[in-house]
Amino acid sequence: MVNQELIKSLAQSSPAKIVLIVIDGLGGLPRLETGKTELEAANTPNLDRLAAKGICGLVDTVGPGITPGSAPGHLALFGYDPLRFNIGRGVLEATGIDFDLQYGDVAARGNFCTIDESGLVTDRRAGRISTEKCTELCRLLDGIAIGGVKSLVRPVREHRLVVVFRGDGLCADVTDSDPQQVGVVPKAVTALQPEADKMADIANQFAAQTKTILTGHHPANMVLLRGFSERPQFPTMSEIYKLKPAAIASYPMYRGLARLVGMEVLQTGASIEQEFMTLKQHYAGYDFFFLHIKGTDSAGEDGDFDRKVKVIEEADRALSILISMEPDVIVVTGDHSSPALLKGHSWHPVPVLLYSKWCRADRVGEFSESACLSGGLGRFPATQIMPLAMANALKLTKFGA
Amino acid sequence: MVNQELIKSLAQSSPAKIVLIVIDGLGGLPRLETGKTELEAANTPNLDRLAAKGICGLVDTVGPGITPGSAPGHLALFGYDPLRFNIGRGVLEATGIDFDLQYGDVAARGNFCTIDESGLVTDRRAGRISTEKCTELCRLLDGIAIGGVKSLVRPVREHRLVVVFRGDGLCADVTDSDPQQVGVVPKAVTALQPEADKMADIANQFAAQTKTILTGHHPANMVLLRGFSERPQFPTMSEIYKLKPAAIASYPMYRGLARLVGMEVLQTGASIEQEFMTLKQHYAGYDFFFLHIKGTDSAGEDGDFDRKVKVIEEADRALSILISMEPDVIVVTGDHSSPALLKGHSWHPVPVLLYSKWCRADRVGEFSESACLSGGLGRFPATQIMPLAMANALKLTKFGA
Repeated sequence: MVNQELIKSLAQSSPAKIVLIVIDGLGGLPRLETGKTELEAANTPNLDRLAAKGICGLVDTVGPGITPGSAPGHLALFGYDPLRFNIGRGVLEATGIDFDLQYGDVAARGNFCTIDESGLVTDRRAGRISTEKCTELCRLLDGIAIGGVKSLVRPVREHRLVVVFRGDGLCADVTDSDPQQVGVVPKAVTALQPEADKMADIANQFAAQTKTILTGHHPANMVLLRGFSERPQFPTMSEIYKLKPAAIASYPMYRGLARLVGMEVLQTGASIEQEFMTLKQHYAGYDFFFLHIKGTDSAGEDGDFDRKVKVIEEADRALSILISMEPDVIVVTGDHSSPALLKGHSWHPVPVLLYSKWCRADRVGEFSESACLSGGLGRFPATQIMPLAMANALKLTKFGA
Repeated sequence: MVNQELIKSLAQSSPAKIVLIVIDGLGGLPRLETGKTELEAANTPNLDRLAAKGICGLVDTVGPGITPGSAPGHLALFGYDPLRFNIGRGVLEATGIDFDLQYGDVAARGNFCTIDESGLVTDRRAGRISTEKCTELCRLLDGIAIGGVKSLVRPVREHRLVVVFRGDGLCADVTDSDPQQVGVVPKAVTALQPEADKMADIANQFAAQTKTILTGHHPANMVLLRGFSERPQFPTMSEIYKLKPAAIASYPMYRGLARLVGMEVLQTGASIEQEFMTLKQHYAGYDFFFLHIKGTDSAGEDGDFDRKVKVIEEADRALSILISMEPDVIVVTGDHSSPALLKGHSWHPVPVLLYSKWCRADRVGEFSESACLSGGLGRFPATQIMPLAMANALKLTKFGA
């Protein structure tokens, strides 16, 4: 029996509330001068108090040594094995622009590109046209209907776009049209199994119409598609945990990921404080909240140690809004580390704290990488966070008699 | 997806260098009088400095409570699940004498034995003849050719030998000729599947010829074979990690194991210092080095606590040669524990230290079993060492977007 099935068999509904705060890219590396990481340098009285009253540890989101992307990192935090639950490239791209993908939709990642008079690709990125231009051109292509299938075309950034095909009987098991090189014509999309014949045919007709419509829009006079994929049939968090879950995230990618596991996405302002106010406002309506804080990861990726410290401090201040509501279980962690010193995601395990009345507190008195090392939760896979949160909310019944 | 496949999909080549030092049987048990293990009693300023700058932990090579042999212990350190990657008895024996086994070879472990006039086995070990006698008799048998298949016969120690059959179309799936008891005739080798008919036939002809050749060499007047096996088709370390790996080991078994995972084996002198000088000499030519130190395990197996301490101190001194070359990642650990008090391999987890610029150092200030207990790597399976080393060398790309 896999873990998720076990949890599903034990989960029971109750009024107890669980709040999962994800401080994106939370873990860091120490500055040479001070020996302190971003989290250790930050002044975080609320987090430290929660750590002192709670139980701490370090999580690996995918596995030791593995640097997680945002999608596998979050899936693990939601309790989904990120090696088993796979998100296709097209779906991920749609997710990243907050597109409300339906089951049966087929999404593809697209590039505007340049072709010459003979139809050969001369630039796979159409000279990296502006996002504005991309938006304008997507509008021209949006809504193309072919044999009952509608094409929904959305801009992403610069030359990037998403095409979602919506209609009956579509199967995503087709090849890319993107040849991944210049000097050749775009490839014909072909079916990898008979059920995908219709999708291949429609994708090729879409390409033909696109070529006609974009004539005269050099350098963006053609579209290349890749990563055709369907919205994955993940069991929802309601099915597994019997929770009514809500997501609060100011960045589209995280709203999209939350939707893929069946969370309701709440409208929110962009600041951390506004996110917490959104939580307060909807507090009565749900028993699980995922609240996502993006600024830490962005600062880490920019290599800006001090800004990451400031975002952590901002999060800490806003946390008092949550603490005053006294949820039954609070979990604070990250989806991966993003040390400013490495200017990107990294493999280092992420500090986690869990506070509940029943957590069996350890002796950790502050929330930091080094303090969490000796925490009562030890070092463990992030997929275990949800079972622990459920247990601490007294939402899991006994296993076996 | 299993871990090794994941790592393979993420590995990228770079100039960064990884050095894995295996101090065989490193872990120990404390002497009653002092409460200190061999490693704790040893004066190890270099190891302690690396531990202080690096991150430490304890590894289980096969699993908690499992005492590993050298082969599974090393496979785990190289990142191969020792429960999944199996080495047949014949292959292991060939490996142990540094025999350069080719794919398609079939190796069998052999015993010289004694048979009486009626052909019944009277001593399965031929009175434990000397290694010299064994060597002389192997020379008589070496090179027997049967239907295009050549028999390569090599002495091991006392009555033990290895027979490698080399030729086309051999399959190792045959039964032993060794009856594992006296008072019976040696068994006929039989095929366990049709593809192995040829191998069975040749093994039986080999036995018949052996019997003739050894007439008059009582007590060693026959050979019993068991554990027919082929060189396993392990993915190489180059395939998995995109590394160019080299092995430095003064004992044949470890050179053999390194060869099975595709390492290049370097010629080296026998002392620890000479091994490190070999590393220095070939430093530019490879990006991964496995350096094996045998004396600790031998001392542990002999129950010689003080000698084990001395070998650890010798290793510590030689380590300064490596440190001066400033490799990107240094890992020091063992393939298992060999406490002098137990006079053999044991199940106790093995201290490990990993040093790199990006390791997120913990507060461990010395390299010892008890200090490693509170290390930042925690207690983890030895198969995770290579992914961690690769990550710290920045040789693994992000998983998922």
